[in-house]
Amino acid sequence: MISFARGVPAPECLAVEELAESARAALERDGHSILSYGPGGGYGPLREWLAERHGVEPGRVVITSGSLQGFVFLAEQLVRPGTRVLVEAPTYDRPLKILARLGAEIVPLEMDEEGLVPEAVEEALDAGAAPAFLYAIPTFQNPSGRTLSLERRQRLAELARERQLLVLEDDPYGLVRYEGESLPSVFELAAGESIAYASSFSKTVAPGLRVGWFVLPQQLAKEIEALAVSTYISPPFLSQATVFEFARRGSFEPNLERVNGLLRERRDAILEALAREMPEDASWTQPDGGYFVWLDLPSGPPTDELFAQAEEAGVTFVKGTDFFPGGRGGERSLRLAFSFVSPDEIAEGISLLGNLARAAAPSASATL
Amino acid sequence: MISFARGVPAPECLAVEELAESARAALERDGHSILSYGPGGGYGPLREWLAERHGVEPGRVVITSGSLQGFVFLAEQLVRPGTRVLVEAPTYDRPLKILARLGAEIVPLEMDEEGLVPEAVEEALDAGAAPAFLYAIPTFQNPSGRTLSLERRQRLAELARERQLLVLEDDPYGLVRYEGESLPSVFELAAGESIAYASSFSKTVAPGLRVGWFVLPQQLAKEIEALAVSTYISPPFLSQATVFEFARRGSFEPNLERVNGLLRERRDAILEALAREMPEDASWTQPDGGYFVWLDLPSGPPTDELFAQAEEAGVTFVKGTDFFPGGRGGERSLRLAFSFVSPDEIAEGISLLGNLARAAAPSASATL
Repeated sequence: MISFARGVPAPECLAVEELAESARAALERDGHSILSYGPGGGYGPLREWLAERHGVEPGRVVITSGSLQGFVFLAEQLVRPGTRVLVEAPTYDRPLKILARLGAEIVPLEMDEEGLVPEAVEEALDAGAAPAFLYAIPTFQNPSGRTLSLERRQRLAELARERQLLVLEDDPYGLVRYEGESLPSVFELAAGESIAYASSFSKTVAPGLRVGWFVLPQQLAKEIEALAVSTYISPPFLSQATVFEFARRGSFEPNLERVNGLLRERRDAILEALAREMPEDASWTQPDGGYFVWLDLPSGPPTDELFAQAEEAGVTFVKGTDFFPGGRGGERSLRLAFSFVSPDEIAEGISLLGNLARAAAPSASATL
Repeated sequence: MISFARGVPAPECLAVEELAESARAALERDGHSILSYGPGGGYGPLREWLAERHGVEPGRVVITSGSLQGFVFLAEQLVRPGTRVLVEAPTYDRPLKILARLGAEIVPLEMDEEGLVPEAVEEALDAGAAPAFLYAIPTFQNPSGRTLSLERRQRLAELARERQLLVLEDDPYGLVRYEGESLPSVFELAAGESIAYASSFSKTVAPGLRVGWFVLPQQLAKEIEALAVSTYISPPFLSQATVFEFARRGSFEPNLERVNGLLRERRDAILEALAREMPEDASWTQPDGGYFVWLDLPSGPPTDELFAQAEEAGVTFVKGTDFFPGGRGGERSLRLAFSFVSPDEIAEGISLLGNLARAAAPSASATL
């Protein structure tokens, strides 16, 4: 099975030997702290390193077991049944499920090629009770691969301030860039005000380490840290200390460059294959980074059908509907993750998908 | 400050060098699995090792970031506002807080020197709606240090079956025994039926690793694993794999023996000091293992007062009231953790506490 479903790094991205050495060195250098209970907000030295990178006090950084755990804490703190939460549509499916479990009223907001449409945010703010927050992934979005333009980032930072809107900026892919210039984060543009910034080492070091972090307004950081303490006393410091040691010895940047090189090949392979294999009316995003391409097949079969056909042919992906609240949207769209599979598998998998899509497209139908 | 408050192992209990080597070896042997996402229920090899020790299928074992995290999952799955939950009184304070946060109706059950009184369980079952579960720490209980007798364990296993009562048997201290014969767990006596068994490597390897586990009925295990996946995708495998490697190379048992030796000295020191320093009407438990002694000072000052005096004198402990739902109970009781402090500090700290207790006791008052 060729999997375009797995939004995870290819195995060769994992710096196994260096991380083994980092884990050992971290324990030898600071074993007593790492092996004991400690601050619920995370391993001190990593917290300080992250705080310095973001230009904030360490107390505003909360490191969690992957950023999803932090999202759960934040949602548990801010969402009660019926609370409105604004989301991009489409958006990452796991937060949608967590919000649904907590009984949130999830408000989907329109996106276009430049990402989230700011007017859609304003309309949603005018149309009902103040939302707990807006959840947005401005850079190389999951699932669409889209990146919010600079102008829109500025507008979102303004809206956060003017409308007292807490924006949760989830940024796991920001550093996973293959070309083009980095854009400032909404957090940076807003000088940290009214923005909760989240990121993770899952894409830059290793997902299995489960080290994500939040940069939060002071008061919210205290509340989330208290929730962390009452859930697990302190997080597993060994993973966090291993990441810190990896960074301390200067491996973070070179490893990121190596990883981005491996992933760029895959991004190139999928864009080439899509151009070669897809029917004329198909369209897809052209990400400068991240893990995902969003493919629209307006004349293809509904993705439910395509999904079944593809699995039979040995290819899998995630259906567009999974990324819309209540599954309303994305009926003829696919999320293709190119991060895990090899360039050769990508070529083969897209060719198989292309056959299925073309078989259903108008020109193909006409010849039947 | 001499701390009898910290229920954690003394620093010299931590096998820093061996764990550093285990972390490195684990990553070198199985780095790709450890550094990737995987089963939400925990690192496969450790899960299998635990399943074999408990004589169950690996699917019934769920490894969490410390056992408190598992307790949170279980409570979130089973407790709604108003749900009854039975607890020993006194009991571990953190679960009480979690249950209160979820709006549970917490029903405290009487204990005596042989631990939880089975008739109190029956009465509580007869007196109201079926509880979600009974939370019990049968061995070297936190905070009392008491151990449930064999007869009562058998009775509890029967009650679990006869009354369809889910018993959550929390057993972090069972292996931390300094003398006497081990008793079978309630889980063993009930052949695993209607019992959720929880334990942890916090006391046998290191608390900072945050590796706890649950052995659950099949269906509940599936539900808890699903909750784990939707909270953090997978747990941090590095800690779990380090514990597995530590066990695999045969270090678990010798380390436990070494740790128990260090803690036995402390247990001996506190019992000797209490006999020497406390007023005549004081009484305390005589644990064969674990971390805690429960001290009753019937004629002492209320522990609020004693606590303030003790802090001034340079000694601290946890007030008895913290271990009763709503703080109703334990007004003249103290939990003394002897695990963290050295034997010399124990002697000094108990002498200071003894001075304060004697100053308030009847005979001492008479001489004033």
